[in-house]
Amino acid sequence: MKSVVFSLPGNKGMAKSLAHKLGADIGSLRTRRFPDQESYVRYETPIEGRKIILVCTLDRPDKKILPLLFAAAAARDLGAADIGLVAPYLAYMRQDRRFQSGEAVTSKHFASALGQWIDWLVTVDPHLHRLTSLSEVYAVRSAVAHAAPAISAWIHQSIKNPVLVGPDSESEQWVSAVSKSAGAPFLVLEKTRRGDRDVEVSVPDVEQWRNHTPVLVDDIISTARTMIETVGHLRAAGLAPPVCVGVHAVFADNAYKELQAAGAGRIVTTNTITHECNKIDVAPLLAEGIQNILG
Amino acid sequence: MKSVVFSLPGNKGMAKSLAHKLGADIGSLRTRRFPDQESYVRYETPIEGRKIILVCTLDRPDKKILPLLFAAAAARDLGAADIGLVAPYLAYMRQDRRFQSGEAVTSKHFASALGQWIDWLVTVDPHLHRLTSLSEVYAVRSAVAHAAPAISAWIHQSIKNPVLVGPDSESEQWVSAVSKSAGAPFLVLEKTRRGDRDVEVSVPDVEQWRNHTPVLVDDIISTARTMIETVGHLRAAGLAPPVCVGVHAVFADNAYKELQAAGAGRIVTTNTITHECNKIDVAPLLAEGIQNILG
Repeated sequence: MKSVVFSLPGNKGMAKSLAHKLGADIGSLRTRRFPDQESYVRYETPIEGRKIILVCTLDRPDKKILPLLFAAAAARDLGAADIGLVAPYLAYMRQDRRFQSGEAVTSKHFASALGQWIDWLVTVDPHLHRLTSLSEVYAVRSAVAHAAPAISAWIHQSIKNPVLVGPDSESEQWVSAVSKSAGAPFLVLEKTRRGDRDVEVSVPDVEQWRNHTPVLVDDIISTARTMIETVGHLRAAGLAPPVCVGVHAVFADNAYKELQAAGAGRIVTTNTITHECNKIDVAPLLAEGIQNILG
Repeated sequence: MKSVVFSLPGNKGMAKSLAHKLGADIGSLRTRRFPDQESYVRYETPIEGRKIILVCTLDRPDKKILPLLFAAAAARDLGAADIGLVAPYLAYMRQDRRFQSGEAVTSKHFASALGQWIDWLVTVDPHLHRLTSLSEVYAVRSAVAHAAPAISAWIHQSIKNPVLVGPDSESEQWVSAVSKSAGAPFLVLEKTRRGDRDVEVSVPDVEQWRNHTPVLVDDIISTARTMIETVGHLRAAGLAPPVCVGVHAVFADNAYKELQAAGAGRIVTTNTITHECNKIDVAPLLAEGIQNILG
């Protein structure tokens, strides 16, 4: 029997897209909030004995986590054969260890809270800063889709004469990788320290890039601090308005407007989090990840 | 060694009060929210080998549940000997069964999500509508504190010439019980059905109560619909502005203002949820419940 895809609030577009690509059914999951702000969840499509796929991106997780846990727990209760979660953006990937005594290792606890109810998880580029694999945090089966090829392809198709820009030497490795698959050159900003608080940032061989469009790429655009600074340096050096590309459009508070105001050109992200700047569709990558898991 | 009491945001007063009554220490739990709205949790007091008590009332649970789960999970991780939760108001007690096919039984799932991390639970008058005991939902040890005696005592001390009012015949049993312990008479409104949509509500023997102060009592004041209607009937019958007493001051949306506008006199609740109408302190009852569990 076909799998059934259900969307939690705000994920209808992605759910439809995945169901289409997977040849799966679309189910109806009703959720609402009572006046006291508790949540109500009901499957309006029978799920007994069926493989189900819940679609719920997890930025700003507070309002999302209880309806999601209830949907997953109810699915188990109602006899679903297999319960998968597609979280295009996965929350709580930053605190993966105890940096100071007494801290909650929220990556681990969040994974454990979710993992209790689901059988598998598919996501796009989780923020694995110190970890090498999602399975170090999630005990359930998981698959990770990588947005880099889709981003490289988008840059290649959409930007005339691009130059990839790394904000610092740490970023050189991935910037050079994206630049290679996009078929574009790259440059890395240079920092010259003049004193404890006096760091000059400059664009090496700046004349060479006058006719190029700088392209910044990052995984999560949250406060956008690094991008805003880098945009500032590039504009100060007289380069064209940089195109800013992110995988996950978190945009905390006013970050989107601030990045625009800082002199960015186009701001472009994938659709792991719905935002007006979504231009790169990750549904095909997610569908592939799901197929790898469901076999 | 003494137990340590920690408060989640908004519960400092109750935590202090409980620590004082229990002769326990007060610990410091730091919580904050990152710009992307994820939560950070850190124990600033060592807890290894100690019995800890987390205080977190659970109205409007969305913002509270992740910090609470993280605090409980981290406590386990950090080697706490025993992890208790004092939730003066306990959320998700309404949907305790599947009324329609496909519904999530949120009482059970919420209990299961919480119960994974805590060793015991103490609360005040959970909304046990169809259930007879909290242990039908919570697998962990639990104790329930009852606010009725404190409410009766408050009415006895504070209201001159009270008459307890039941909004309908279903409420007669508990209204008569509170009235007995408050040493006050009670009346129950009468409904006369004149047609499908035409129900007349009247105050029996209304002349007898002209010099009394009507007192309405309910467990949760959420939308306050029933209280607002009952206040209307009593005012229409020419009685004094009724005193409205609730255990849990949920007050969804504008319910508090609407209840005032409907002609209520004083509105009084216990302090299970912090609100300007808190007048009755349940800390002694909670402390007793905790002592019963900790032995």
